[in-house]
Amino acid sequence: MDRIGIIDLGSNSARLMIAQYTPGLAFKVTDEVSRRVRLSEGMATENVLHPAAIDRALDTLQVFQAFCHAQGITRIVPVATAAVRDAANGEEFLARVRAETGLEFRVLTGEEEAYWGTVGVVNSLGLRDGFVIDIGGGSVEISQVQRGDFKRGITTPLGAVRLTETYVHSDPVKSSEVKRLIDHIAAAFEALTWMTLESGEQFAGIGGTIRALVRIDRGMSGYPLGLVHGYELKLSRLDRLIDRLLSLPVHERARKVPGLMADRTDIILAGTMVVAGALRRAGADRLVVCGQGLREGLLYRELLKPADPPLIRNLREFSILNIARLYGYEQAHTKHVAALVLSLFDQLAPVHGYGALEREYLWAAAQLHDIGTVIDYYDHHKHSAYIILNAGLPGYSHRETVLIAQLCLYHRKGKPNPEPYSRLLKDGDVKRINRLAALLRLAEYLDRSRAQTVTDLHVTATGKQVRLRVNARTSAEARVEVWEAQRNAELFEEAFGCKLEIEQA
Amino acid sequence: MDRIGIIDLGSNSARLMIAQYTPGLAFKVTDEVSRRVRLSEGMATENVLHPAAIDRALDTLQVFQAFCHAQGITRIVPVATAAVRDAANGEEFLARVRAETGLEFRVLTGEEEAYWGTVGVVNSLGLRDGFVIDIGGGSVEISQVQRGDFKRGITTPLGAVRLTETYVHSDPVKSSEVKRLIDHIAAAFEALTWMTLESGEQFAGIGGTIRALVRIDRGMSGYPLGLVHGYELKLSRLDRLIDRLLSLPVHERARKVPGLMADRTDIILAGTMVVAGALRRAGADRLVVCGQGLREGLLYRELLKPADPPLIRNLREFSILNIARLYGYEQAHTKHVAALVLSLFDQLAPVHGYGALEREYLWAAAQLHDIGTVIDYYDHHKHSAYIILNAGLPGYSHRETVLIAQLCLYHRKGKPNPEPYSRLLKDGDVKRINRLAALLRLAEYLDRSRAQTVTDLHVTATGKQVRLRVNARTSAEARVEVWEAQRNAELFEEAFGCKLEIEQA
Repeated sequence: MDRIGIIDLGSNSARLMIAQYTPGLAFKVTDEVSRRVRLSEGMATENVLHPAAIDRALDTLQVFQAFCHAQGITRIVPVATAAVRDAANGEEFLARVRAETGLEFRVLTGEEEAYWGTVGVVNSLGLRDGFVIDIGGGSVEISQVQRGDFKRGITTPLGAVRLTETYVHSDPVKSSEVKRLIDHIAAAFEALTWMTLESGEQFAGIGGTIRALVRIDRGMSGYPLGLVHGYELKLSRLDRLIDRLLSLPVHERARKVPGLMADRTDIILAGTMVVAGALRRAGADRLVVCGQGLREGLLYRELLKPADPPLIRNLREFSILNIARLYGYEQAHTKHVAALVLSLFDQLAPVHGYGALEREYLWAAAQLHDIGTVIDYYDHHKHSAYIILNAGLPGYSHRETVLIAQLCLYHRKGKPNPEPYSRLLKDGDVKRINRLAALLRLAEYLDRSRAQTVTDLHVTATGKQVRLRVNARTSAEARVEVWEAQRNAELFEEAFGCKLEIEQA
Repeated sequence: MDRIGIIDLGSNSARLMIAQYTPGLAFKVTDEVSRRVRLSEGMATENVLHPAAIDRALDTLQVFQAFCHAQGITRIVPVATAAVRDAANGEEFLARVRAETGLEFRVLTGEEEAYWGTVGVVNSLGLRDGFVIDIGGGSVEISQVQRGDFKRGITTPLGAVRLTETYVHSDPVKSSEVKRLIDHIAAAFEALTWMTLESGEQFAGIGGTIRALVRIDRGMSGYPLGLVHGYELKLSRLDRLIDRLLSLPVHERARKVPGLMADRTDIILAGTMVVAGALRRAGADRLVVCGQGLREGLLYRELLKPADPPLIRNLREFSILNIARLYGYEQAHTKHVAALVLSLFDQLAPVHGYGALEREYLWAAAQLHDIGTVIDYYDHHKHSAYIILNAGLPGYSHRETVLIAQLCLYHRKGKPNPEPYSRLLKDGDVKRINRLAALLRLAEYLDRSRAQTVTDLHVTATGKQVRLRVNARTSAEARVEVWEAQRNAELFEEAFGCKLEIEQA
């Protein structure tokens, strides 16, 4: 696999992201170093990078460069954004960086910053129509996406660090300061007449401030999944958080707001107000958090070359195959299980009444059910579910991720129990999981020999009886597949309320 | 990696184990098919393999052969044990197997069966002196191990299936039958005058019956780890289980004894009595369960060729390196972190007073702390701990496995919390984990750049202050390592009750 280092020198943080990738096929982030450089410190009053900030940045970039060097990474893509872009001494700073580290930075324009962030979001959230907001330390980028394409993007100096330095001077913050802050934010967004959310559109968010909000919100609500990507921040909860922050002096916030990290206690108020203000202006009741942004956007450019724009055509399919490829799945078996389970699904459609989405979940689970073997063969069903719930499935909602993980968890044995995730599930999901897991389990046992012995199957369903006739390559071979599948028919019979009879044709 | 299929045709089950291995270095089981053939059915009354049992065996072996063929596995090692060995028509049966599947079985003598089982145990439990009992369906093998070497082994027809067929004819079982069963078992073990456990020796057990007992015992006690290997079955609890089983008719046992599988409800009573009888005879109060046995023993023969006997010299070290190799750890960084943390440990010995075992845990955690990256970079500390607790660390006790996993879990951030595993821990372990994790965290940050910048360090501890001076390859380079390590000094300061000052020499 090729490797690349992407450096993003922002106004608040500097980040180095290392990734491995096989062009066009798969990728994986393997390391990330993040340093709170606060490059834009002092820039609210004068438009120059201050010496202390410059020193911190140079130190950090030296570490990044040494890191890449030690790992033998030669392809490095370093970009700089708002602070360097706006500063009068920006070019002078970059020349010093070049001299002291060898890194050749490219300064992104505001529109480019928005564009690459959008590429990251479209390729990981599957956003087709809507907006993306990226809240940094110095600036905020807002992009509009239509039919999966970047339509327009602007940058506005509403970064959390910049706003806090400009408007917040007392602690606890005075109501006059709050009012000026709110008015400033509202006025900035008022000007964006195109930022109104239509039905079916989504408002997505990226950046450190937004990830910080997820940590806080998750803590307050006891969310059952550790995923940041795909998390939904509701406007009503953000408003409540703002009220809470307003009532607390900075030094008490980390203690009294679980999930709030010490390095953001001062800037979090302004950051939250910007998110709430944007949602309110757009008429959106929630923000969908994206774990990928500008850095990943630049990675997709490499991964998908020479595609321009570098957009993944079918994200949900790519997402599943990406993980399957990374964990080295056994293609012949998973392909066959997929074919068998989809055949079962299609032939039983009159019985279960499910549609394209469920069919897709089955296909996905068929691809991923054995990836847990990479951890250990024993209990690999457990490990497959663990990987899915921790690596996440870009393009799938959290509910769908849980559904697919449950199918993998129960593909061999046991009775599905999605109770821990019930708050993410919809009505009918318990039955849905039971039925789909039962089909996957049947398909799994019909290829227990992993020799693709069963060539096809024919289902007849009458009343309380389902008869499954299988064809095999020779008459002798499928005897044990049939026996294993019949031995493990209990979940199917319970889920479909019928007797299952399997025989060889 | 090379691949191999090992087939073990026993009296109760037939198993195919597929493994990948790099000769001398690493191995991993990648698949296992197990079928309850009950080959020794009916052999209590006459010493021939019955037709129905033969048919089941042939079906199963055909599946095993097709499985290996489909996966392109050409190296297959098929062995048969008690049932085939004792049956009058054993050779005839094997000729049919050869004709119908192409598999060339080797019949192990009783001593060979014991020997290979012992190789599996010594190479995975680190057993040096003691005994190994393998309870199968037809026979029981007991081996004596001295200084890690196989000293002697016998086979006795006390298999769970055989005993049940011979002695248990009523349901619930009559007390006269129980008495005859107990007397028969006791008499068989009385004859083994060498089977007495000295201080410092261990009694280990392998086989399906013993794994079944773990499932039952774990369910009854709410054990916090999923590992079978290394589990301790106490004689007092086995006696209580026997009483419970005696009071239940067979058809009620699965329901009333959680963890007892339906396919063992009849034979579990005799099986448990054999284990209890052996422990009692040896004067042992517990059995250490080994997850590896005869099949793995045959695998070790391949892995460690041409070593004879094929015994791993330093199991604990091999165990850690095996997992590290399988997950593709980054050698330069982990070697360096290991060197730094051991230096810290040695220099702070007057302060912490820990010894060789703790030093070993630190070394192990340094090797494994990043393996979780194979699942996802984000939260990889969590994933490293997950892998350790699920794959297990042969040679280490469950308590030690938890300790090492905790060190990995907390190598970057957070305050150790081993509460869920408290029943496995000893006094002083919470403090032990805090102190060792603090050292590992320091070492991790002192190589944050992964460039091995810090060459060595010097510790001075006076009263409530610890001063750490680091040397770097050039004077400029270690600035950020020092800064990062200082920034993350909180756990160290709490664990050692002192102030930590880090500076570059």
